[in-house]
Amino acid sequence: MSNTTGMANLNLTGDDGTVPTEDEVNPWEVHASSATGVDYDKLIKRFGSSPIDSALLSKFETALGQPPHFLLRRGIVFSHRDMDQILALHSQGKPFFLYTGRGPSSEAMHMGHVIPFLFTKWLQEAFNVPLVIQMTDDEKFLWKDISLETARSYTTENAKHNRPRLRPERTFIFSDLDYIGSSPEFYRNMCRVQKAVTFNQAKGIFGFTESDCIGKISFPAIQAAPSFSSSFPQIFNSRSDIPCLIPCAIDQDPYFRMTRDVAPRIGCPKPALLHSTFFPALQGCQTKMSASDANSSVFLTDTPKAVKDKINKYAFSGGGATVEEHKKNGGNCDIDVSYQYLRFFLDDDQRLEKIRQDYSSGELLTGYLKKELIELLQAFLKSHQEKRKAVTNEVVKQFMTPRKLKFDY
Amino acid sequence: MSNTTGMANLNLTGDDGTVPTEDEVNPWEVHASSATGVDYDKLIKRFGSSPIDSALLSKFETALGQPPHFLLRRGIVFSHRDMDQILALHSQGKPFFLYTGRGPSSEAMHMGHVIPFLFTKWLQEAFNVPLVIQMTDDEKFLWKDISLETARSYTTENAKHNRPRLRPERTFIFSDLDYIGSSPEFYRNMCRVQKAVTFNQAKGIFGFTESDCIGKISFPAIQAAPSFSSSFPQIFNSRSDIPCLIPCAIDQDPYFRMTRDVAPRIGCPKPALLHSTFFPALQGCQTKMSASDANSSVFLTDTPKAVKDKINKYAFSGGGATVEEHKKNGGNCDIDVSYQYLRFFLDDDQRLEKIRQDYSSGELLTGYLKKELIELLQAFLKSHQEKRKAVTNEVVKQFMTPRKLKFDY
Repeated sequence: MSNTTGMANLNLTGDDGTVPTEDEVNPWEVHASSATGVDYDKLIKRFGSSPIDSALLSKFETALGQPPHFLLRRGIVFSHRDMDQILALHSQGKPFFLYTGRGPSSEAMHMGHVIPFLFTKWLQEAFNVPLVIQMTDDEKFLWKDISLETARSYTTENAKHNRPRLRPERTFIFSDLDYIGSSPEFYRNMCRVQKAVTFNQAKGIFGFTESDCIGKISFPAIQAAPSFSSSFPQIFNSRSDIPCLIPCAIDQDPYFRMTRDVAPRIGCPKPALLHSTFFPALQGCQTKMSASDANSSVFLTDTPKAVKDKINKYAFSGGGATVEEHKKNGGNCDIDVSYQYLRFFLDDDQRLEKIRQDYSSGELLTGYLKKELIELLQAFLKSHQEKRKAVTNEVVKQFMTPRKLKFDY
Repeated sequence: MSNTTGMANLNLTGDDGTVPTEDEVNPWEVHASSATGVDYDKLIKRFGSSPIDSALLSKFETALGQPPHFLLRRGIVFSHRDMDQILALHSQGKPFFLYTGRGPSSEAMHMGHVIPFLFTKWLQEAFNVPLVIQMTDDEKFLWKDISLETARSYTTENAKHNRPRLRPERTFIFSDLDYIGSSPEFYRNMCRVQKAVTFNQAKGIFGFTESDCIGKISFPAIQAAPSFSSSFPQIFNSRSDIPCLIPCAIDQDPYFRMTRDVAPRIGCPKPALLHSTFFPALQGCQTKMSASDANSSVFLTDTPKAVKDKINKYAFSGGGATVEEHKKNGGNCDIDVSYQYLRFFLDDDQRLEKIRQDYSSGELLTGYLKKELIELLQAFLKSHQEKRKAVTNEVVKQFMTPRKLKFDY
């Protein structure tokens, strides 16, 4: 997928360096017109999706017999399409599957990339369903100045970071560059979608121009195809009627608006969606997160010292200019990056709320939030890096081999 | 391919029924502005190809130690790109391969469809080289109002008609709908071509509009990919440097002009080409050959009686209105369909020349030419239909299984 299917990078300036007057959210660029970031309520209206409200959260709890994931409760996963139908299906004991993806644009992965997989892992375990993960290395080849071989190698390296979290018996990770050439049924679904979408429609949805290569123009069909269970006959016993739920960042919605439009015309169920917000850069919502700037994010390969140095040096503070001022006016959680990161990673609601109150009141200093975050990320990365080390090419190959998954319907 | 890769149907009127003032030759429409048919000399200039002249025919004879095929000698295969290089390679004992194709638009195949395979069979045997035949069932699905399943079934039926002529140990017939999903290397070459061609370029070459579906727009890459030996690693031991020779009707040239433009940019040799003229309808160059009009052509499934009736009733005559007039002024071979068909099917040069002289002088009547043609086609179809009967689905499957071919380099 174009950024990550999960939390995409946030870019506050336009192509020409100016600040646009309206939020621009599409698979290749995310511009926020305001320093407080993207206006997600407006986005819901513009995209025509539905907010995740307390009624839906209750349905989650009823269906699962457990509280929904904190990313749902905290409004980080904030919007959906037809999630109520998926919950109803689940309550009736009917099957569905999960589909998410990643565009492997380099070997490096940062904390923002890992969140969608943490959330997807939770969905997979809570609902006990199969999961397919598309690595769009063909897309990266088409969009970037890299060779096919390089794009394919990023897939393997990225998959190694995903693997520790996912159950092999229910997870199929695939490279487009490998799987499309291994699955006539996947290719046939690509053809079906490609026949149902005109250049004009693709232009309207994705902003393609006549100077774009024909590979880009037909690519949306490739991201659409995994929404249909018939693209994976080895998993779904050649059934074409198993519904799909796609957890993704809101910037990927254009692909799936198109997919939902096409689905009934090719005799397939429309995929349901769960949309998440974007993961901020260390420098805050005002600056661009850049894979080429090692200081804009914490990477999965960072050492404990690097984590500490980066957070201390770069994490934008919502605190006062002086201790006195801070004690008097309190800190601003809405723009404090350490607090925002804690929202993504600290699963203890009560503790998070206490931190929010004490920071807002001025009792806690930014330094405390940073310390809390550093310890949390260091522990997370220690565990991640240990598990990552154990992931050999052989293990990745196992996940990426087209095969039957556990699917008992 | 869009019509047949061999001799395409000839269509003399424009979409609006008017006669255009310039020949229009592209993969989907062939319009001739004149009643004598397409001006092939002009086409060579417009397309920038080279005429097949006596010097090239001599090189053929030298390289092969036998006269070139009568379709070459008679100027039916009339134009080329880089054929001299292929002949030079062959003389040096270096390898190349043949690539041709067919767009399986229905189960029915007529005499025009069989000629490219007769010619290709001659090339295969004369040069002793591997041959790949692309059945573009995906293209037919994209362009026509048919299902994928129907398009795929036409491939099998059409392949049954090709098979009797071709050597299994040197021939791979493939359905796009099957093979693309079975060959990562083929898909990767598709991606490479799709990255190298913009919508603007595809529009310029093929006349696509913004209302065309994105499948059509990216399809040219699929017809380009078999020009590269790396698309068939199982045949060419994963070599990417084996040159390709494509015998096709001149209307397919736009695909391969594009392919030749892209080839050096993706590190592949440019394919060489042999272009043929179009096969006329029974009603002559003034009328459109239509698959839905059983009377416009002789079909491979026609009975001896049907052949006789069609030729006698429909084959346009270049003879005089009365016997007296004919004896006085002679017949016109250029517009006499029976004579034109004999040029395509009668391999005896001396006999053909004698017929031409005697018909032109008025000595022979049209009835004689028709009788000659009827006997020739009846014998051809008798033999073809017998061989066709022996071709089971199993035999077709053998030809269509990706496998090693005889290729000793």
